[in-house]
This record gives sequence, C-alpha cells and structure tokens, in this order.
Amino acid sequence: MAASRSARNAPRTRRPRNADDRRAEIVLRAAELFDEVGYHLTSMDDIARAVGLSKPTLYHYFTSKDSILLAIHEEFISILLGRQRQRLEQDDRGTSDLLLDVMVDICDLMRTHRGYVRVFFEHHRELPEASRAKALAARDAYFDSVRGLFERGRAESLLAGDPMLNSMALFGMCNWAYQWYDPRGTLTSLDVARHFHRILLQGVERRPT
Amino acid sequence: MAASRSARNAPRTRRPRNADDRRAEIVLRAAELFDEVGYHLTSMDDIARAVGLSKPTLYHYFTSKDSILLAIHEEFISILLGRQRQRLEQDDRGTSDLLLDVMVDICDLMRTHRGYVRVFFEHHRELPEASRAKALAARDAYFDSVRGLFERGRAESLLAGDPMLNSMALFGMCNWAYQWYDPRGTLTSLDVARHFHRILLQGVERRPT
Repeated sequence: MAASRSARNAPRTRRPRNADDRRAEIVLRAAELFDEVGYHLTSMDDIARAVGLSKPTLYHYFTSKDSILLAIHEEFISILLGRQRQRLEQDDRGTSDLLLDVMVDICDLMRTHRGYVRVFFEHHRELPEASRAKALAARDAYFDSVRGLFERGRAESLLAGDPMLNSMALFGMCNWAYQWYDPRGTLTSLDVARHFHRILLQGVERRPT
Repeated sequence: MAASRSARNAPRTRRPRNADDRRAEIVLRAAELFDEVGYHLTSMDDIARAVGLSKPTLYHYFTSKDSILLAIHEEFISILLGRQRQRLEQDDRGTSDLLLDVMVDICDLMRTHRGYVRVFFEHHRELPEASRAKALAARDAYFDSVRGLFERGRAESLLAGDPMLNSMALFGMCNWAYQWYDPRGTLTSLDVARHFHRILLQGVERRPT
C-alpha cells in the first residue's frame, strides 16, 4: 500500500503501460543516472526517485542495483548481437559491408543508448559473479562473430592481418567514441562510423607483396 | 607520534629513501588499488595500509583521495607529453615514425603503468573541479600534438582524411587496449602498437583519386 501511494504521489511519474514498459523505463533512467553520477554513487533511492516509484515498488522489479546493471548489459549486447545475427542469416552482404554494419551499429549506440555505453564498458567487472559469466559469454559471442568477418575476408583473399588484432582495432576505434563523441555536435554517428570504416578497410586490405 | 609508531609497526613497509620516493610509492600503490578494487571502493585507510603508513602520515603527503587521483593523471600525461615534446624538438623523424612512436608510448603504458591506465581513462570526471581544468589542458595539449602530426602528413601530401577523426582512430585503437591487453600474454605491447600503426598508416595514406 505504501508503495502504490508513494508512486501515486510522485510528481515525475510518466506511467508506463505495463510491467515490461516500466522495467524498461527503470533500466533507462538508471543507465542515465549511472552515466551522469557514476554507478557507485547512485543508490536504489536515487533510481526510485528518478523513475517516480516507491522503493518497494522498485524492488518488485529489481532486487538490487547489480541486477539493473545486468539488465543494462543484456539490453546493450542483445541489440548488437541481434542485428549482427540477422544480417549473417540473410547472407546478402559482402564482408566489407558487414564490417561497416557492425561499426554503424556500435557508433549509433553512442547516440541512442548514451547512458548505457559507459556503464557497459566501465562496469562489467562489478556484475554479480553469477550473471557475469552469462554477460561475458554474450560479449564473447559478439566478438567472435566480428572476428569471423575478418577471417572470412582473409579466406576471400581480400583482407590481411591477424583477425583478433584487426577486431581489436575495430572495437577500439568505435568503442572509444563513448569517451569523446557528442551526438549534439556536427558529426553524425554515421559520419564517424564511415570514417573509421574507411581507415579500417584500407588499413587491413590485402596488398600484393 | 601515533603516526610514526604505527608506520614502524606496519609489516609491509618498504621504506623509500626520501619524500619524493614515498610520494611516488603512494601514487603507485593507490593506482593499483583503484585498478583492482575500484576508485570509489578504495578508502584512504586502504591506501595507508597498502603502503604501510599510518593515516596521518599518508595525509601528510596527500590531503585527499582526489589529490592522489590528480597525481596519477599528472604522472600519466606528463610521461606521454614529455616523450612527444622531446621527439618533436629533435625533429629527426618522419611523420609516420612519429605516429608509430606515439602508439608505442601509449601501448607500452598498458604494460608499465597498468594500474594508472584504467584510472586515467575512467575517472577524469571525478577530479576535483580546481585541478580538473589543469589535467584537461594537459590532455588537450597531447591530443593537439597528435592531431598536428596528421595535419603535417596532409601538408606533406602523405596522409588524407580529417586530422581530428584520424587522431580519434589512433587513440581509440591504442587506448582501448586497456580493456583487453594482457602483458603476461604472448603479444608484446610493441606487437600491438606496430599492428595498429600498420592499419592506421595504410588506412589514412593519401591515394590517387
């Protein structure tokens, strides 16, 4: 009762339509807080206040700050993995285009999931032990699928260089954008992705020796 | 008195020769703790214990955790800036080699200053307001000197592409290594720097249109 009364009184509540929507809103607001204030300096109280929920209601959705952190990781990586798998199943794009797609996906998250990005990159070590393995497995699956593109490029005699290090170059260029890219500036996330893709592709293309 | 007695009793004290050495040791141990445990979860008590000093003695060197964070930033960037300025003064290396030097410097810090790297990249926002401007100015000076190399490469008709984005590609590839590079593995930091330099140089070289 206290929970619902408190939620009713919260002035900033924009009532989501159902439990899934509310869960999504909690994750989104928490991600924003973690990004602005820092993960360790944000409390469940802060999150409850930001979403306009009582603390008991918040605990109904998430039993701990850790579990929100896990939800952020799952959402982030499932977007990337989902898009990548869909493209690979369709099997209608060349290797270079598939690499561009990956880079566009990552750079675009700097715009669409701003709050998530820092949390995803800087706080994977804080995930609770039990869920950490699952989150890392999803990350590994994504990494492997990207490395697979560089391997495919080698098999096609288009690309050269170690696929692992080439993948790290791709992730380095794109992921690092979370430190500097400002979506309110003049560069679109697509501009950034295309520029880095040009460097990467030209940089790893196979040349006559 | 309590301070010196406590320090004398600390079993793990390796007594540095003078105040500068002790200061350096505090910064080093604190950086390791921040890296392992996290900046927000490390207390001045933890740092005092790790260095084998009483808390009052620690406070004699650093008045707050913030000020240790600042010292880490200053040491990190002054290494990079110092090496870069020295090379630019000597003026005996070509643009490509100077870019390689930068990449070697950064990748090598992943090995020699492991504890510092995460702190430097993830906690610049936590620097106290007063010192933040100074730390950011040093970062900006370093960034500008690297961007200057890409501008020079354009002026020499060797390199193409926007110097700012090219610099971000360089920093992305090298800086991101703090997330994955393990100095105990088979790849040396020089291997990594050379691989990324090859991608970058080939990727930004000017081509006939």
